[in-house]
Amino acid sequence: MTVTCSVYIAASLDGFIARPDGDIDWLHNPAYTLPDGENDFGYEAFMATVDALVMGSYSYEKVLSFDSWPYGAKKVVVLTQRPLSPPTDPAANVSFDSGPPANIVARQAQAGARHLYIDGGQTIQRFLRAGLIDQMIITQIPILLGSGIPLFGDLGVEIPLRLQHSRAFANGFVQNQYQIEKEEGRRKKVESRR
Amino acid sequence: MTVTCSVYIAASLDGFIARPDGDIDWLHNPAYTLPDGENDFGYEAFMATVDALVMGSYSYEKVLSFDSWPYGAKKVVVLTQRPLSPPTDPAANVSFDSGPPANIVARQAQAGARHLYIDGGQTIQRFLRAGLIDQMIITQIPILLGSGIPLFGDLGVEIPLRLQHSRAFANGFVQNQYQIEKEEGRRKKVESRR
Repeated sequence: MTVTCSVYIAASLDGFIARPDGDIDWLHNPAYTLPDGENDFGYEAFMATVDALVMGSYSYEKVLSFDSWPYGAKKVVVLTQRPLSPPTDPAANVSFDSGPPANIVARQAQAGARHLYIDGGQTIQRFLRAGLIDQMIITQIPILLGSGIPLFGDLGVEIPLRLQHSRAFANGFVQNQYQIEKEEGRRKKVESRR
Repeated sequence: MTVTCSVYIAASLDGFIARPDGDIDWLHNPAYTLPDGENDFGYEAFMATVDALVMGSYSYEKVLSFDSWPYGAKKVVVLTQRPLSPPTDPAANVSFDSGPPANIVARQAQAGARHLYIDGGQTIQRFLRAGLIDQMIITQIPILLGSGIPLFGDLGVEIPLRLQHSRAFANGFVQNQYQIEKEEGRRKKVESRR
């Protein structure tokens, strides 16, 4: 059985998903507001197809700091090697796991998941390095943040992509959907500064 | 008199303009070839409006390593603090300059330039930090290079952009044109990891 792993994330034109302290308030700039019904950028439709979200402890703690738990009863798997508190929202469906990305995917597949939403910079990078990401929907925000938490950073692997869809919004967002083909031999390790 | 400073450059989805050693052969992947007449991506039309190219010594030495000088008689200003050889092509129109970006622009304006093409990662970053870039045409290549020379890196300044045009090509390239508004107070220094 096949599990599809997807990325759905916003990044500044210079490739940051958050400011250095994790702040994402810049995403909620009133200048980016579109008419009602167009501010979704396909998120709800994407989420409706997701069986479980997989995120790192840093993203999880950021989400916990929000006013309310944003994922309802959607299954969320937090990758962590340290104990973390569950959300206070009784509807939340959070479990904790750790280990190599392939094992995480295998355990979720065994539990019946067919579509995983991989979220957070470091988690996305780990899954990309492991060759486990199938598609990425990246919404590029018209700003240079100048510093922050990188979406990709120095991955250390070269990965060809196939553009499936590109859409520009009236607020300057450009959303691109890429597919990653899992052909052996097309991926190769590259020299990294890390 | 106003001088417009433009960026026209290709970058991988992870924001690299070249491999760590400056190699840009990945841009010439046969998989990216479009039918005749569509492989230009607006370059010639853009170049026809440019009075002078401004690039750093690193980019210049890369260009010198090409089989032939690619800029014909177009004026090229190389920013360098060390002596560099002129191109062997007798048609080449190369001069060397150094100093703050604002002084470079002022000297070119005095010489009659109205449109400067700012090229090369470090030179683009210096001109962005100095608030001197008016527009950027960035062609995003559908590949994660994994490491390389960054287009933006950690700029250390936050710069809002206005999307003017977005176009996806059949080979997966996405070309976005951004305008930078030079309103005082919209630019601000941000915490940098540098």
